[in-house]
Amino acid sequence: MSLTIKLRITPSISHLYPNPKTQKNPTFSRIPIYLSNKLTTPLVFRTKRMASHVIKSSLIEPDGGVLVDLIVPETQRGLKALEAEGMAKVRLTKIDLEWVHVISEGWASPLKGFMREDEYLQSLHFNSLRMENDGSVVNMSLPIVLAIDDETKERIGGANDVALVGPDLSIVAILRSIEIYKHNKEERIARTWGTTAPGLPYVEEVITPAGNWLIGGDLEVLSPIKYNDGLDSYRLSPKQLREEFDCRQADAVFAFQLRNPVHNGHALLMNDTRKRLLDLGYKNPILLLHPLGGYTNADDVPLDVRMEQHSKVLEDGVLDPETTIVSIFPSPMHYAGPTEVQWHAKARINAGANFYIVGRDPAGMGHPTEKRDLYDPDHGKKVLSMAPGLEKLNILPFRVAAYDTVAKEMAFFDPSHAKDFLFISGTKMRTFARTGESPPNGFMCPGGWDVLVKYYAGLQAEEAAPAVVSA
Amino acid sequence: MSLTIKLRITPSISHLYPNPKTQKNPTFSRIPIYLSNKLTTPLVFRTKRMASHVIKSSLIEPDGGVLVDLIVPETQRGLKALEAEGMAKVRLTKIDLEWVHVISEGWASPLKGFMREDEYLQSLHFNSLRMENDGSVVNMSLPIVLAIDDETKERIGGANDVALVGPDLSIVAILRSIEIYKHNKEERIARTWGTTAPGLPYVEEVITPAGNWLIGGDLEVLSPIKYNDGLDSYRLSPKQLREEFDCRQADAVFAFQLRNPVHNGHALLMNDTRKRLLDLGYKNPILLLHPLGGYTNADDVPLDVRMEQHSKVLEDGVLDPETTIVSIFPSPMHYAGPTEVQWHAKARINAGANFYIVGRDPAGMGHPTEKRDLYDPDHGKKVLSMAPGLEKLNILPFRVAAYDTVAKEMAFFDPSHAKDFLFISGTKMRTFARTGESPPNGFMCPGGWDVLVKYYAGLQAEEAAPAVVSA
Repeated sequence: MSLTIKLRITPSISHLYPNPKTQKNPTFSRIPIYLSNKLTTPLVFRTKRMASHVIKSSLIEPDGGVLVDLIVPETQRGLKALEAEGMAKVRLTKIDLEWVHVISEGWASPLKGFMREDEYLQSLHFNSLRMENDGSVVNMSLPIVLAIDDETKERIGGANDVALVGPDLSIVAILRSIEIYKHNKEERIARTWGTTAPGLPYVEEVITPAGNWLIGGDLEVLSPIKYNDGLDSYRLSPKQLREEFDCRQADAVFAFQLRNPVHNGHALLMNDTRKRLLDLGYKNPILLLHPLGGYTNADDVPLDVRMEQHSKVLEDGVLDPETTIVSIFPSPMHYAGPTEVQWHAKARINAGANFYIVGRDPAGMGHPTEKRDLYDPDHGKKVLSMAPGLEKLNILPFRVAAYDTVAKEMAFFDPSHAKDFLFISGTKMRTFARTGESPPNGFMCPGGWDVLVKYYAGLQAEEAAPAVVSA
Repeated sequence: MSLTIKLRITPSISHLYPNPKTQKNPTFSRIPIYLSNKLTTPLVFRTKRMASHVIKSSLIEPDGGVLVDLIVPETQRGLKALEAEGMAKVRLTKIDLEWVHVISEGWASPLKGFMREDEYLQSLHFNSLRMENDGSVVNMSLPIVLAIDDETKERIGGANDVALVGPDLSIVAILRSIEIYKHNKEERIARTWGTTAPGLPYVEEVITPAGNWLIGGDLEVLSPIKYNDGLDSYRLSPKQLREEFDCRQADAVFAFQLRNPVHNGHALLMNDTRKRLLDLGYKNPILLLHPLGGYTNADDVPLDVRMEQHSKVLEDGVLDPETTIVSIFPSPMHYAGPTEVQWHAKARINAGANFYIVGRDPAGMGHPTEKRDLYDPDHGKKVLSMAPGLEKLNILPFRVAAYDTVAKEMAFFDPSHAKDFLFISGTKMRTFARTGESPPNGFMCPGGWDVLVKYYAGLQAEEAAPAVVSA
């Protein structure tokens, strides 16, 4: 049991770290062993070496034309920190801090801080923002906002700037030229999720307990956000990812957003996508396998386990480390279907991806109070393909893969022999892993499957433990 | 009491009809006496005379560049009606028919029928539609959809076209190349109103009782929609309005959407707007006083009474008939605040208005279950000013007028002597009218006020009647 707890909180992932013996070409190396098969030295040194490089944006421009970077230069940190000490303080939750991370690295470019009311209203009503300089439109489907309570609002009074304080009480950032406006939670929820039914994970975790005011402003982040969970080196910023794509001389980058373990059906899709891009004449399409790393529902497999599983998928050769980059997308998850999938795609534009694979029912979930999907499974794809500001992104619709019981492998579903196909849902997969039962041979690479089995075994031991103790 | 009933159902508005004696310039005349002071012959003849004219769109282009007109030419009506006889039938409610009217005359240009799913999703998520031909964006904030039930869907089967049948069982229109898709009422309501609380008038009246499917397609309307309520001649189409603006040689058209009686504060605002437009160098700004004529909440003053009241306002000289056109906007009312105000503005672009006066809390109402406004009163103006597809429209913010107890007239509120101002809300105004108490002198022209007093007196008599009968 203690192993499981350790795995979940400070994961044992030493096997993910660099192994100099497998190194082939240090110039191209950014990603730790098994995720890229190439990294030799900690990422931070390399980033320094790259700092003076101009970021090429040959594949796709970041939204607004310039990648936002809100990290205060090291030379100014002392002075800014001192200044922040004298400001009214706003306490951040763990999830607020994830958003600070997201904004600071430019995932939400051109957004330069938490939304002021004009941006909030545009996001809520139009899923997009109009740029003031040239009237062009960028996608912005989720309100990226910071809530404060009445007491904090009172304490801020008429101040122009406030200091943002992390859950560990350290000053994380300054928010400049602030604007405080009403947090109409009901309207925010209704327009973001298309329902106000109780039981939406992000609503219950984040919005309901939050204050009745929103505070917007320009963000200055005192130093890069780190989690010290052993996974920070996998959290490549959009800037670092663009550098990596340039280093690899990618002429197409296709992003795959996920928050689940990778099975062979996913791999089939990703490998097939690469093949199709090669057929289209691209010479070196690179896959950005981009697991979401911020807040997820407790039912989802935790990030560290997923990263370990992804590592095994590359180690087992199911995906090719030469043409795959695995990195963590730091955003929290809303489970807001067609509204959220736009955010998932838009953020990847900022990281340099010009192709985006959209799944069936992306960011969807069951309706919290009714026996049906919350969203029509096709709406995510449809909405994404029509979304304002995403015209420059190539949307690749997901092809459904299932287990072909005759060929004994995952294959694209073929309705002409439908009866041969077995659909293994996420729930079924978790049941297999929980009960220790093996899925059909060929469903997932053995190394990846073992990671899941161990995780669920640990979880069950942990769940059983209190009863044992109290007995 | 019988008089009151008559007033409400088949209103006695003969005094609104043309009076040749007051006619000044027949060339310019489109609007009946007291509303324009100019009309001599029924509108239908004049429209015929104008039919061959090219519509000038010098002030502002209709959305999509061409004003949609879906009325079948007279020469084809017989054949189309015959064809429609053989099609599966879809029954329209009274409010569906109002939407057929709206779409058929091009108020919703470039929409050519009830929305198919692609249009519905864009409306719901982006409040706008992207044009397929050139990628430009037009505003479209309300889903304009037709619901059908399971039985009707089954009856339609795999047909390509259906006939739409009015509440009086006559065939009204054909819907071509239909698409049937799910009517997710909860999501539609949440994204349109920003709440799913019970008690929203349009939801209870229209959406909740509607079927679980939506049917979209291209509309062909067999003949112009008429209501035979004595007010049809006031229902000028966007084409007729554009002709009228051209005839009057308007170089600016400012629209005022309303669903309430006009008091002197409104008049002050409208007259002041004209003055400001003159100051800007316009030579002949024309006011489009444009009461909403479709479905309204039972608490609102009925259309016929409002039209009578508006007539008095022109008769009493509060507004100048020379520079004012009063016409009925046939749309039903959603009471959907910032979402709906976009529709109200967009439809007026199609009618040729290039200025739009936006009120405080436009299309707003009290929250149906909480003691607060449903919308922030400023959001309508803000959302409208940022709405995609409305960039070409000049938005004129409403200046708040109140009763100046010193000057004894309606005046723009001046915070420097706030204590002199008396705010007379709609509720207060209705209470005055109901109790027969006079509002402060100068609040509303006497002729207009009398219309309201009579209406409420009749209403009370009617409400009291059953008790008397049963006694």
